Amino acid sequence: MTYNLILLRHGNSVWNQKNLFTGWVDVDLSDLGRQEAKRAGELLGQSGLKPDLLYTSVLKRAINTAHIALDQIDRNWIPTERTWRLNERHYGALQGLDKAETLEKYGAEQFQIWRRSYDVPPPPIADDNEFSQAHDERYAGLGADLPKTECLKDVLVRMLPYWEQNISKQLVSGKTILITAHGNSLRALVKHLDGVSDDAIAELNIPTGIPLHYKLDENLKPLVAGGEYLDPEAAAAGAAAVANQGKK
Amino acid sequence: MTYNLILLRHGNSVWNQKNLFTGWVDVDLSDLGRQEAKRAGELLGQSGLKPDLLYTSVLKRAINTAHIALDQIDRNWIPTERTWRLNERHYGALQGLDKAETLEKYGAEQFQIWRRSYDVPPPPIADDNEFSQAHDERYAGLGADLPKTECLKDVLVRMLPYWEQNISKQLVSGKTILITAHGNSLRALVKHLDGVSDDAIAELNIPTGIPLHYKLDENLKPLVAGGEYLDPEAAAAGAAAVANQGKK
Repeated sequence: MTYNLILLRHGNSVWNQKNLFTGWVDVDLSDLGRQEAKRAGELLGQSGLKPDLLYTSVLKRAINTAHIALDQIDRNWIPTERTWRLNERHYGALQGLDKAETLEKYGAEQFQIWRRSYDVPPPPIADDNEFSQAHDERYAGLGADLPKTECLKDVLVRMLPYWEQNISKQLVSGKTILITAHGNSLRALVKHLDGVSDDAIAELNIPTGIPLHYKLDENLKPLVAGGEYLDPEAAAAGAAAVANQGKK
Repeated sequence: MTYNLILLRHGNSVWNQKNLFTGWVDVDLSDLGRQEAKRAGELLGQSGLKPDLLYTSVLKRAINTAHIALDQIDRNWIPTERTWRLNERHYGALQGLDKAETLEKYGAEQFQIWRRSYDVPPPPIADDNEFSQAHDERYAGLGADLPKTECLKDVLVRMLPYWEQNISKQLVSGKTILITAHGNSLRALVKHLDGVSDDAIAELNIPTGIPLHYKLDENLKPLVAGGEYLDPEAAAAGAAAVANQGKK
């Protein structure tokens, strides 16, 4: 028995275009991002994969990516679960800051630590910062779980219980699952699935808008390490582009 | 304690524009329908009502109406449940037929019986009819529950268990509920809520794209019979237009 899992990172957002740290700020897709989502749907259609169940974050760039992609294959009727546990990494006090300016101000070393270290989070965001989620109704039930900043390890720690208690149970019931989420929540999941080391995960980038298909065995181990992108050439180019972010 | 329920009939669809009987055929919104959905979202925003939970049918014209309307008020993150029990009335063998031609062929009396009688369904659709749902994957689990035709009474009978076991329980937990559905599944619900007689329901039309707000008491009885449209003038004009459907 093998199981089908499809990961999809949302397309380009309005703040990607402005080169700002986004994190939990709920910015929408850009027109380019909508085109990427449509293309992702076309790739799903060509692959013959038919998601039975959708998981997304509670951020509109992931929700809208799923809606556009599933519209392409006439499957917006499938059951949908949305959870903050699939949200992008909370970028702390960096949320809303310009990436290039931050690089210039703090230097390449500090910048790279904030972006890619496994266990060093950026400084926490203040509750009265305009880009804080302290007063966002959708997180009102979280209490002390509401992050003020996160490193990738923090993302993994809050994502994994949801994977184990929800998504993986649906997978082993035989459902094909689509997860539409973010660069870092998907990196955390890939780290778990492929057993990527804390060091090696720094170099792993997931391109936007290209479905990544994992066939999983009965123990939910990937049959092909790293999974298979539905458009491998575009995925390689996209991953390189992510690695170069922050450079002007 | 009062509870807030908002009913929203999907906007104009591609087949509304062609004047075809639609029923369970999964046709999309027209551009006009998308504009209506956007306007519905604006009305929700002005009202200050904030849905905590969304219910839709599994038909894309209702799903997309909800998506567009909730996007206007930044609430596509709310939990969503979709069920065939909120689908439009199954129009049987009439699905895909031109309304004006059907009126001409069968006469005004038969036409009106099929459209508005409480308990006389149209002839059943054949499984090999191109507009049958017999082989539609989303209904694969229904077995003998899959309708081949429905009268309004049939809609009420399949809708009501979902209302009682799901929606009403969420209402009495204090959640503001948005239901985005169809002319006849909403008429069935309104019949139940307001205790409309089998005869009187024939004359009750629900306009497209205008949120209908019910304040309900602790027994889920409406505080104002018939609820309150968020745009009463447009609703009156819209209901009159529905009543005239089928006339060339």
